[in-house]
Amino acid sequence: MNGLATAHPDDATLGVWLVGARGDIATTLMVGARAIAAGLSSDSGLTTARPPFDGLPLTALADLRFGGVDIDDGPLWRSALGVYQRSRTIDRETLDAVAADIEVIDNDIVHVPDMAWDPGAPIPGLPSLRLLVDGLRARLQAFRHRHGLARVVVVNLMSSLPHPALSPSRDTRAGIEALIDADRKDLISPSVCYLWAALLEGCPYINFTPNAGTDWAGVAELAEHVRVPFYGDDGKTGETLIKTALAHMFAYRNLRVLSWEGVNLLGNNDGRMLNEPRNRTAKLHNKEQVLSGILGYEPHAGVTINYVPSLGDWKTAWDLIHFQGFLDVPMCMQFTWQGCDSILAAPLVLDLVRLTDFAARSGEVGPMRQLAAFFKNPLAVAEMDFHRQCADLIAYARRHLGEDTQAHADAPTP
Amino acid sequence: MNGLATAHPDDATLGVWLVGARGDIATTLMVGARAIAAGLSSDSGLTTARPPFDGLPLTALADLRFGGVDIDDGPLWRSALGVYQRSRTIDRETLDAVAADIEVIDNDIVHVPDMAWDPGAPIPGLPSLRLLVDGLRARLQAFRHRHGLARVVVVNLMSSLPHPALSPSRDTRAGIEALIDADRKDLISPSVCYLWAALLEGCPYINFTPNAGTDWAGVAELAEHVRVPFYGDDGKTGETLIKTALAHMFAYRNLRVLSWEGVNLLGNNDGRMLNEPRNRTAKLHNKEQVLSGILGYEPHAGVTINYVPSLGDWKTAWDLIHFQGFLDVPMCMQFTWQGCDSILAAPLVLDLVRLTDFAARSGEVGPMRQLAAFFKNPLAVAEMDFHRQCADLIAYARRHLGEDTQAHADAPTP
Amino acid sequence: MNGLATAHPDDATLGVWLVGARGDIATTLMVGARAIAAGLSSDSGLTTARPPFDGLPLTALADLRFGGVDIDDGPLWRSALGVYQRSRTIDRETLDAVAADIEVIDNDIVHVPDMAWDPGAPIPGLPSLRLLVDGLRARLQAFRHRHGLARVVVVNLMSSLPHPALSPSRDTRAGIEALIDADRKDLISPSVCYLWAALLEGCPYINFTPNAGTDWAGVAELAEHVRVPFYGDDGKTGETLIKTALAHMFAYRNLRVLSWEGVNLLGNNDGRMLNEPRNRTAKLHNKEQVLSGILGYEPHAGVTINYVPSLGDWKTAWDLIHFQGFLDVPMCMQFTWQGCDSILAAPLVLDLVRLTDFAARSGEVGPMRQLAAFFKNPLAVAEMDFHRQCADLIAYARRHLGEDTQAHADAPTP
Amino acid sequence: MNGLATAHPDDATLGVWLVGARGDIATTLMVGARAIAAGLSSDSGLTTARPPFDGLPLTALADLRFGGVDIDDGPLWRSALGVYQRSRTIDRETLDAVAADIEVIDNDIVHVPDMAWDPGAPIPGLPSLRLLVDGLRARLQAFRHRHGLARVVVVNLMSSLPHPALSPSRDTRAGIEALIDADRKDLISPSVCYLWAALLEGCPYINFTPNAGTDWAGVAELAEHVRVPFYGDDGKTGETLIKTALAHMFAYRNLRVLSWEGVNLLGNNDGRMLNEPRNRTAKLHNKEQVLSGILGYEPHAGVTINYVPSLGDWKTAWDLIHFQGFLDVPMCMQFTWQGCDSILAAPLVLDLVRLTDFAARSGEVGPMRQLAAFFKNPLAVAEMDFHRQCADLIAYARRHLGEDTQAHADAPTP
Repeated sequence: MNGLATAHPDDATLGVWLVGARGDIATTLMVGARAIAAGLSSDSGLTTARPPFDGLPLTALADLRFGGVDIDDGPLWRSALGVYQRSRTIDRETLDAVAADIEVIDNDIVHVPDMAWDPGAPIPGLPSLRLLVDGLRARLQAFRHRHGLARVVVVNLMSSLPHPALSPSRDTRAGIEALIDADRKDLISPSVCYLWAALLEGCPYINFTPNAGTDWAGVAELAEHVRVPFYGDDGKTGETLIKTALAHMFAYRNLRVLSWEGVNLLGNNDGRMLNEPRNRTAKLHNKEQVLSGILGYEPHAGVTINYVPSLGDWKTAWDLIHFQGFLDVPMCMQFTWQGCDSILAAPLVLDLVRLTDFAARSGEVGPMRQLAAFFKNPLAVAEMDFHRQCADLIAYARRHLGEDTQAHADAPTP
Repeated sequence: MNGLATAHPDDATLGVWLVGARGDIATTLMVGARAIAAGLSSDSGLTTARPPFDGLPLTALADLRFGGVDIDDGPLWRSALGVYQRSRTIDRETLDAVAADIEVIDNDIVHVPDMAWDPGAPIPGLPSLRLLVDGLRARLQAFRHRHGLARVVVVNLMSSLPHPALSPSRDTRAGIEALIDADRKDLISPSVCYLWAALLEGCPYINFTPNAGTDWAGVAELAEHVRVPFYGDDGKTGETLIKTALAHMFAYRNLRVLSWEGVNLLGNNDGRMLNEPRNRTAKLHNKEQVLSGILGYEPHAGVTINYVPSLGDWKTAWDLIHFQGFLDVPMCMQFTWQGCDSILAAPLVLDLVRLTDFAARSGEVGPMRQLAAFFKNPLAVAEMDFHRQCADLIAYARRHLGEDTQAHADAPTP
Repeated sequence: MNGLATAHPDDATLGVWLVGARGDIATTLMVGARAIAAGLSSDSGLTTARPPFDGLPLTALADLRFGGVDIDDGPLWRSALGVYQRSRTIDRETLDAVAADIEVIDNDIVHVPDMAWDPGAPIPGLPSLRLLVDGLRARLQAFRHRHGLARVVVVNLMSSLPHPALSPSRDTRAGIEALIDADRKDLISPSVCYLWAALLEGCPYINFTPNAGTDWAGVAELAEHVRVPFYGDDGKTGETLIKTALAHMFAYRNLRVLSWEGVNLLGNNDGRMLNEPRNRTAKLHNKEQVLSGILGYEPHAGVTINYVPSLGDWKTAWDLIHFQGFLDVPMCMQFTWQGCDSILAAPLVLDLVRLTDFAARSGEVGPMRQLAAFFKNPLAVAEMDFHRQCADLIAYARRHLGEDTQAHADAPTP
Repeated sequence: MNGLATAHPDDATLGVWLVGARGDIATTLMVGARAIAAGLSSDSGLTTARPPFDGLPLTALADLRFGGVDIDDGPLWRSALGVYQRSRTIDRETLDAVAADIEVIDNDIVHVPDMAWDPGAPIPGLPSLRLLVDGLRARLQAFRHRHGLARVVVVNLMSSLPHPALSPSRDTRAGIEALIDADRKDLISPSVCYLWAALLEGCPYINFTPNAGTDWAGVAELAEHVRVPFYGDDGKTGETLIKTALAHMFAYRNLRVLSWEGVNLLGNNDGRMLNEPRNRTAKLHNKEQVLSGILGYEPHAGVTINYVPSLGDWKTAWDLIHFQGFLDVPMCMQFTWQGCDSILAAPLVLDLVRLTDFAARSGEVGPMRQLAAFFKNPLAVAEMDFHRQCADLIAYARRHLGEDTQAHADAPTP
């Protein structure tokens, strides 16, 4: 028996409602969850499959029921085939083995029109914000009722869009409601509609993207009111993961970072969207801020994102770290990271779904700070060092397991 | 005022006796200590210049008095000029500014014949072990008396040599004494002579090299008897530093490391010695063992050390990390590390000297486990993760500062 | 119509007899030839598909009939499935599409006992050399007669083995015959048996491996006698390809190469064999000699080959080039090359088969110097620069096309 | 005796008039020319020091007399000290040895006001174009007369500026004269003033920068009229050099380049200027066009230039080449190039000066196509392959040496 099989006793099934359910990450995580449940793949990549998390009563992967919305009108099988053909990640045998499951899941994915408006230039002719929010709520309710689900976690996986302009109305629940009623598409972005609909339906919410909303005070107020937890932003899958795992080494050794220049090449849909400068503002901000949080000063830190279509989902990052050592001698470290974006992101979403559901069942409300290690821009957490973020998550798990955290403080985790 | 200027009140001067005092590391650390003390260089690279260590009453760099032995008959100025010309690290202006200091220090460096015997094939005609040990003690005493030094820390910086064959006599102080008396050069290596002489003279001892001795039970017995602290082995300056700073990231994310292949190119004297396979056995062992300690399993982990003379002291390491993620997809990270060996090592030796003296003044005896972060093969410590080793060292400092360690546990260090 | 479809008018079919016919390279080239002929893949990687070679009357890929021997007793389908599973290169659809062809080819592959003796320590109990050579000839004859083949090219793809000791008997055809008769397995290696059998059967021969034989004067004598062309050694697929394409740039610019250090990581069967130091002597020699031929002096040039099983057929090479520019300033270039060995090698074998058959039909005898660009160690050619080797091959093609070579000398090839 | 000492018999001294004479490249080339002439440095980096060029009667480095203009008001010694301090390239001993020479040269460098106007937005209050051109001519004349120089080569080393808008007036000498008379600073850029002044003074002209002018038909007309040779644009020193040395390998092997993504980090004044998007248009164009010229198709090819101040003159380029091989399998090559810009560029300028003077003495007029290998954007030459460009230059030298070019065609150069 491993931790993946540990089911919640009274009501095993957990609904997972994905915004962008036919995208590469969503497709990969659903194929993967089924493949692992069927014993066709190891649990590599899942933090929650390791100690001490495997000791918590997390929902088994086999007990996740997927649904959601997408602007692609499907079917999901086409998305799965596309991932297989473009990325050579999923292998054909695994794909065939989960084909029936994929078909079933597709019944729970609803096509929605592309409402990815740029708040700076909203598309005319869209339904009103209130209609949009109500429509999303109706779809969530339908999913829940169709399967008699007691619990549903909503995860935002949509593409990166510009943030709306600042407005004091964000600071209160009532203010946001007023903006929705006034149909202010310049001040409310699509991601906020999803977030608002999820919370109004009492569903915990994870923002895996750089899109707006989780740090608005009015959102926290609503979450408090409906008693659900939420968290974000922007899953930490590649270059930023390495950065936050490595930067402290320079601080500990007093090696002054002169420049940390990062270049990200990617060719997937995410890359295509980020090729538009307005869309990448939030992501660049998330990537750039981590260093000063760890080093205690601001080195020259550039982040470049280039769209290279032939790479598809295989992101390649190159970082140059120019630093100064003893006698002020400049030295240099470089790294390249070649990973498949969906393969890196998908298990994090599964981890987050399981840990979020656990938090909700444990009665947590508001920002789940213990999840900081999963995000580039962890809400309400100043700690940017990946090792310390992980230590915090491990301590959280041990507290729930009733263990004496101190006793484990200096023991190796594995 | 910064931490470097904080002197021990009653007797400011600390003797630093270096084995290999005209080598590149020793030369660089002495030039650097003087240059920093004279305000010609920042304190980059010195861990002890950062919080919380700058709050401890460590001996100021200006108060270190250097001496030692070398098989090179000098003068030290020639070594300094050589480092300047070969590595372009020290700049000419700094070199000229410390020239007078270098000349003074040289009076305290004694030429010793090359007794770097291979225990597998001892050179005939060498003096007996007892004579060697007594000779070293006499030189240490002379250094101490010449300057009226109350405290002297001994640091071993000699080249890497094969370890002697195992012998049960190592396990006791009396056993080692007997081996020395029996002149068993097959069972006692040169490094043990230095270690033994240092301890018999009551001097704390640091083994910055992969050479033998610190883990012999008989050595611990003698240290206990003479009430001095000691530690080693093998300074963690480059590739292994990165390895131990990065490996845990893979464990936390359950990314299974399939292979971690490291290649080290270096062209200095260290590289020339390591080009001889018997000499590099201990170093390779130290470099290879760290991963399993962090990951909890043994990935394929090769370490290659190649001698590339043109690189001089500028070590270049390339590591390929082949790992498996979600759905068992193989992915890849590479890094290159281009650093000057002496520039990386020198500040660590200064840190170790200051922290060792502090430990001795604090009454510590035996292995100084708090110093694990400085070594590839930390004596009596299982923890290989650099971040956890640093956390332990910070906690140690805070205990001595009377701070509540827990309060700082999740605050960023800088 | 493209060049691949141009068939030889009078007798379209060309036999291709592979030594190591169930290995990764052979399997890949047969799957690939069938896939390209069926329009399932582009002709990427085939030099002979480009101008001016596509203008020559080369045998079409569809007209190649494959056969050969292997120590693996099959079936070939298992090899193809293995390549698919381990390397993720061939895709499942392509594999399925050529499955019937693979089954047919397998009838022409004969299992032979593993006679890979080390000439330094021949395995007792093997048949005599004469019996071995005669057995190979009988198999070649059977393949030829079964299909009524007018022309068969033999290609050696076996693993790398140590070269036999030098013997003056190599220098004549009669001397080699005498060594075979005397069953001198210490002086005749397995590769020489294949070479000898091929020539005695009047078949042109390509040595794609570092194995011995092609540079023996007695071999040239036999080739002259039977009027067939032959060539080798050691296909230039990766790191050496880059080296010979790049080194001249340093020479032209008078940038003095101080060190060129190459590291090759590979995990396939080739890597496993090369992990044995005696087996890699010839390959290392081939890789190391190319630089001095191009630069005109001998820089420090190390070549390391490490076996990293998890990489499978995906070779990763890292090279560091340390060079000196104006004012003797040292600078640095690094490259990494990540390629699949079989995918790189397979098209070269198809190119060589087509060009060798063309040479034989054109009446060429002895070493085919025009093929130097395909080999690490090109027989009887001093030119090591890849660009000049390619220029020679293009000039050769143009002469056969009746074009004025000079007119094209400075025109871009594409 | 080597080629550097070969002086022109009748009038040894050659004037070299540099636009940007106190910049890093100019400073380095003058220090270097003096250091080599004094035997303090090898001739590394100088193409003209190698065969066959060392056989041509080129002006000796010792016989070059430097002068020029700069917007920095000096002295040159400060520039030299700056290069030494920032780049650690020139060593202190060399600097001191040439200090007196540097002081003498400085007398021939004239301070000019910063007239680096953007043709899109000319600075008001500047002197008229005619006054500028006449002023430059007067300074050139003064330099020539002061030293009785029979020959002066002008080299443009100024920073990169936007090109002026297109105008049909460029197409004739009279048209350009009319634009100058009409003071059309929107259509005539500063670089054209330098070029025009040089030609009017009968001086051969080299444009080592991406600045405008050399490809204007009116410029060729004037050069023809005054019977002088000229050439450009944009010295090929780093990433583009590698690109054009490597790209053909992919073409020869029919490895289809899917994407070639290049990233250039630099921190010198050039980098600072290029950080302004309008200034880097011409340079990016030069860097991007080379691939299609070699490959025969247009792969996705991005070029990024980022300003990273701490790197100073040490440029670091990283290129990712994503290509497709047999069976359409994608593979990958990466390289990093770490070179000092001035150290790479300076010897090229000396080579160009010597070869341009030789061409002028040989009676050449107009574009010197034989110099294509030195430029990113070689005027009037379609060949982009570095190897073929070098072969053309070697053939040119051999023709002048009276050698049979064909005889050497396939012999290795060294």
